[in-house]
Amino acid sequence: MATPYAELSKEELEKLKEELEAKYLDVKGKGLSLNMARGKPSPAQLDMEMDFLDVLDSKSEIIASDGADVRNYGDMDGIPEAKKLMADIMETLTSNVIVCGNASLNIMYDTVSRAYTHGLLGNTPWCRLDKVKFLCPVPGYDRHFAICEHFGIEMVNVPMTPKGPDMDIVEKLVSEDESVKGIWCVPKYSNPQGYTYSSDIVRRFAHLKPAAKDFRIFWDNAYAVHHLYDEVSRQDRIPDIISECKNAGNPDMVFEFCSTSKISFAGSGISAIASSQANLDDMRRSMTIQTIGHDKINQLRHVKYFGNIDGLKEHMKKHAALLRPKFEACERVLSSELNGLGIAEWTNPNGGYFISLDVMEGCAKSVVAKCKEAGVTLTGAGATFPYKKDPSDSNIRIAPSYPSPEDLAVATDLLVLCVKLAAVEKLLG
Amino acid sequence: MATPYAELSKEELEKLKEELEAKYLDVKGKGLSLNMARGKPSPAQLDMEMDFLDVLDSKSEIIASDGADVRNYGDMDGIPEAKKLMADIMETLTSNVIVCGNASLNIMYDTVSRAYTHGLLGNTPWCRLDKVKFLCPVPGYDRHFAICEHFGIEMVNVPMTPKGPDMDIVEKLVSEDESVKGIWCVPKYSNPQGYTYSSDIVRRFAHLKPAAKDFRIFWDNAYAVHHLYDEVSRQDRIPDIISECKNAGNPDMVFEFCSTSKISFAGSGISAIASSQANLDDMRRSMTIQTIGHDKINQLRHVKYFGNIDGLKEHMKKHAALLRPKFEACERVLSSELNGLGIAEWTNPNGGYFISLDVMEGCAKSVVAKCKEAGVTLTGAGATFPYKKDPSDSNIRIAPSYPSPEDLAVATDLLVLCVKLAAVEKLLG
Repeated sequence: MATPYAELSKEELEKLKEELEAKYLDVKGKGLSLNMARGKPSPAQLDMEMDFLDVLDSKSEIIASDGADVRNYGDMDGIPEAKKLMADIMETLTSNVIVCGNASLNIMYDTVSRAYTHGLLGNTPWCRLDKVKFLCPVPGYDRHFAICEHFGIEMVNVPMTPKGPDMDIVEKLVSEDESVKGIWCVPKYSNPQGYTYSSDIVRRFAHLKPAAKDFRIFWDNAYAVHHLYDEVSRQDRIPDIISECKNAGNPDMVFEFCSTSKISFAGSGISAIASSQANLDDMRRSMTIQTIGHDKINQLRHVKYFGNIDGLKEHMKKHAALLRPKFEACERVLSSELNGLGIAEWTNPNGGYFISLDVMEGCAKSVVAKCKEAGVTLTGAGATFPYKKDPSDSNIRIAPSYPSPEDLAVATDLLVLCVKLAAVEKLLG
Repeated sequence: MATPYAELSKEELEKLKEELEAKYLDVKGKGLSLNMARGKPSPAQLDMEMDFLDVLDSKSEIIASDGADVRNYGDMDGIPEAKKLMADIMETLTSNVIVCGNASLNIMYDTVSRAYTHGLLGNTPWCRLDKVKFLCPVPGYDRHFAICEHFGIEMVNVPMTPKGPDMDIVEKLVSEDESVKGIWCVPKYSNPQGYTYSSDIVRRFAHLKPAAKDFRIFWDNAYAVHHLYDEVSRQDRIPDIISECKNAGNPDMVFEFCSTSKISFAGSGISAIASSQANLDDMRRSMTIQTIGHDKINQLRHVKYFGNIDGLKEHMKKHAALLRPKFEACERVLSSELNGLGIAEWTNPNGGYFISLDVMEGCAKSVVAKCKEAGVTLTGAGATFPYKKDPSDSNIRIAPSYPSPEDLAVATDLLVLCVKLAAVEKLLG
């Protein structure tokens, strides 16, 4: 059993520091160059699905189920079969869905931008308000926070728990403050912890009583089908937020987003938004000015490749087979090296693209810098918090998807070494 | 030689009206259902390029010239070879270009939206100004006007001439009024006339002395390579506005747009913006929040299909071979039926997607309604003007691209019949 660092004497800590520094110098000498900064699919994963490029060719049928020629202009909502596929990913109704371009991030940005320039459902455009606030469960996804910062939206941290955001705080802030216009949620396999909201928490979301009529839940269902395990018992599930909100008498309170960026090819996928008819119609009034329609050929390519949601889920098992060993390798190194030392905690998710590591308070920046110096790039410390400010400087996002399992083991070895070294330095003051 | 309608006696007009009405009833009985409303490519044109879907398959090299894996995230500016291709279409430098998604309309909307929310190069966001105006050469492109209307931008009509907008008026308004922030231009084969700006007018644009520091020319070079004739003498050319502006000491004054929507597949093309480094960097500050990158696989598909700008120009000759007979059939019917009657004028462009028809003042709505009633849908009368208001109710946009030549002859026969009938009705008071 390992001794917690806090129980070590100054001499023991100093000896330990010398040992760790020697090891660190040794690793630095290897000239590593590895990247665990972003949730990028690995080349092996992309290689495995190259036949995606074969499903459409010059002999293909190019008429959608509604009779539209997918090669021509039109069909702003997307072709019906693509709407159905994206609806099935989100486990909502096809009629709630508009299929868009290659990235859900773009829909999220445009949705905030539209609220800013034109307002939602006839409410005052946010650019005309003195103050607009969003609640941000932390740690969270840096690109969500960047959208808020870009539009001058004040972000308010809300603590996350393994079952979802602290709903007592959410309910209080949403119901008391009319300037609170939104909350960012990654309800399933959250970025970065891999937590999944409990059904109870999803229902508390649906039953929110916002002070602002134009308060919206930004429900980024990015990892809806991104399970790491084939056993159903280890596959997290969440209720359909759209119907929950409808049943709770809040039909217009949520925008849900998803994409195939981490299902087919990152950057060449298709994305979708799901919401109430009123919200979708509101959005269409701007969309019809902004575009004549998105890439329907790529929509058809997706439908033909996966066939339907069952085919897509089978495909995701192949992704899981590649990703699982990486997550497990990470977990193995973290457990064997850090268990019992009292200097770090980390998550062990059933899906998604990330592991969240909390190191000793005040040490995250130091750990990330040390890793970088030795050739391993991690997501910047602080990136998982609004304004890049982690109040306790302790959270680090681990993105195991891109490196090979071998590289990942090397990188995680370095990471735990740096976690220990930073902790020892901190304890020695 | 036809007698001008204005010279006909009341009796002659009434007799003519009877004849025309009889013919109209006859056509109505045929139950036509034809659409000349939008500049959509024809199925024959799309069929001809189906091998576009064959250039990438599971055996393809998927690494861009900068080493980027086109299947993965990143490369926000676009892959270098796609930037080069789009730069060559616009006849500007690759370094001036960012490649975007499937539609230049989307870039135009986003560019206006960004100016509205964040301002251009540090200038006040347009949403904070009491009044923002755009100059709109008329007749022009309805989707440009729709963007302005959506953002509450006041549109000011500027007359077009066969050599471009009336520059005396443009120069005066731009230099005197700080609230004039932009002008919409389709400099080559303009929508709807098919006019091409003269070099002199392009240079007068580059030498504008705007009162507003954030005045921008929105240079929609939509038909850059869309010649109808293979003979170089019948191919219109314009100077590169980016370098003209730079040389005139106005490097940041222009945003140029283009796409392959009418080169490869409409809706599944790639688009691009060209501008100064300062403007592109300004844009990147928002773009990096909005997207991780556009569809690079589709960018690579375009580069592989066309090879380079010469290959693309050869491809456009095949489009011309399909489009030219349609334009010529239209022109033939218009000339043989309307020449000398003094009730209509029309353009005879060397390229682009449209013909502009001016009927007798106060008759455009009537002509479009009559055509619709007999089964031929035209672009709505007024659509070519801001706020859909054609002050003289005389302009009609003809879009010959979609129907087959046979259908087009039938539709144009009906059109000229309706032009005559409306004129006679008008003259009879």
